Amino acid sequence: MSNDARMGQVYLVGAGPGDPELLTLKAYRMLEAADVVVHDRLVSTEILDLIPASARRIDVGKKPKHHPVPQAQINALLIELAESGQTIVRLKGGDPFIFGRGSEEAAVLRSAGVPVAVAPGITAAQGISAATGVPLTHRGLAKSVRFVTGHCRGNLPLDLDWQGLANADTTLVVYMGHANIRHIAGELLAHGLPSDHPVLVVVNGTRANETRLVTHLGALQKTSADMPVPGPVLFIIGGVVELLADTDSQDAESILHTPELQQVLHG
Amino acid sequence: MSNDARMGQVYLVGAGPGDPELLTLKAYRMLEAADVVVHDRLVSTEILDLIPASARRIDVGKKPKHHPVPQAQINALLIELAESGQTIVRLKGGDPFIFGRGSEEAAVLRSAGVPVAVAPGITAAQGISAATGVPLTHRGLAKSVRFVTGHCRGNLPLDLDWQGLANADTTLVVYMGHANIRHIAGELLAHGLPSDHPVLVVVNGTRANETRLVTHLGALQKTSADMPVPGPVLFIIGGVVELLADTDSQDAESILHTPELQQVLHG
Repeated sequence: MSNDARMGQVYLVGAGPGDPELLTLKAYRMLEAADVVVHDRLVSTEILDLIPASARRIDVGKKPKHHPVPQAQINALLIELAESGQTIVRLKGGDPFIFGRGSEEAAVLRSAGVPVAVAPGITAAQGISAATGVPLTHRGLAKSVRFVTGHCRGNLPLDLDWQGLANADTTLVVYMGHANIRHIAGELLAHGLPSDHPVLVVVNGTRANETRLVTHLGALQKTSADMPVPGPVLFIIGGVVELLADTDSQDAESILHTPELQQVLHG
Repeated sequence: MSNDARMGQVYLVGAGPGDPELLTLKAYRMLEAADVVVHDRLVSTEILDLIPASARRIDVGKKPKHHPVPQAQINALLIELAESGQTIVRLKGGDPFIFGRGSEEAAVLRSAGVPVAVAPGITAAQGISAATGVPLTHRGLAKSVRFVTGHCRGNLPLDLDWQGLANADTTLVVYMGHANIRHIAGELLAHGLPSDHPVLVVVNGTRANETRLVTHLGALQKTSADMPVPGPVLFIIGGVVELLADTDSQDAESILHTPELQQVLHG
């Protein structure tokens, strides 16, 4: 960076689970200010459509059968863009500080002297909870809620605290657990949860193509691990699943369709 | 309800931790549509200022040294307002489905035939995580995150899964834990967490009067349980606290101060 170039900045922004109306006002404002948006594959098309036409878009997401851009290369890209004085939105699905590797990127950027500000995002568990009526805590059913990832790097085994996770008083939410769900269900059963312990499986949560399945741990243990799914999957495991409601038919509106917001959006 | 009255509806809306910019676009749209807003004490003044002037406000929050409106009375009020055909926003701090009793209210309303739609909210842990740079998960420091409440009804003892909670690989977030934090720290130490296990204490998180304290479990065990605090307190317990950053000095802006949004807001 030459001494006379103004240092840019990075906004690390949570895009939420897919429904663009679940962006925070802060995330929305940051997106509007972007010169460049560097985004992951999990950010929905509807949210990408909100990016100002003047902003450059860079997709660093992993596509099926393609390698993603390596993390070190993403870091280098963000630093290079910031050093050229630009305002960069680094847009991630969900909340950047919950399974988003956002804190790794923030640490690298701060070490390089790049200012970073963070907009939290509605995490998939929250978006799906609101849309389905299945709460994350509820008196008498769940005293606490726990988020874990079911994904493991390479061929490493899943190294989780199974005894602690097999707690019937806690709602357990598994992110990125699709490939390992048979193993996860087996361990939870082996550590004491009952076979009929309820599970809500949601694919493409909060999106137009959302699908839901209510099942139980015993059934999950028998699923095929290579069952194909067409999008991100979330598992909500616990007694709260019994509260599943028919919801939101009365709320098909969106602020994103109002003339006022379209005006703010597109001038 | 007479047969010719139109049934209203209830929007159960998460207000987030305090910063009005952390409202979702959906929450903001619902607030704009309200005929009546029924709110708790934990909703910040800045957010209450966003309520349209035309909407009636009803405060059902608990004030210090005053009894709150009993839950049954809040339920009855919401049903009565809906039956009179109004659009009601039930506004709660944080996320209505994480320690908000929102699911209890939703169940009562649905039983009474009142349509309910839910807008999730940024929960205090997420707002504080983004503002402080302390992530909720981070490779090598926290494989999962768990939210518990440190509050107990009446004089009942805290009945928590201490062995499961004392997990050094999980970020533990304690809501409403102020009165019991000395006991909580003692149990976590007794179940194996080290005395120097880091803790971030945040009062009035994401608000203008936010205060932060970095400490450790050993010190918390020695605090006075009746230390007064001037607002909501959150404890983030775990190795991730070491990532605390000086943040957000470069982000003093807010979309709420833009003429565009003021126009959407106030016409």
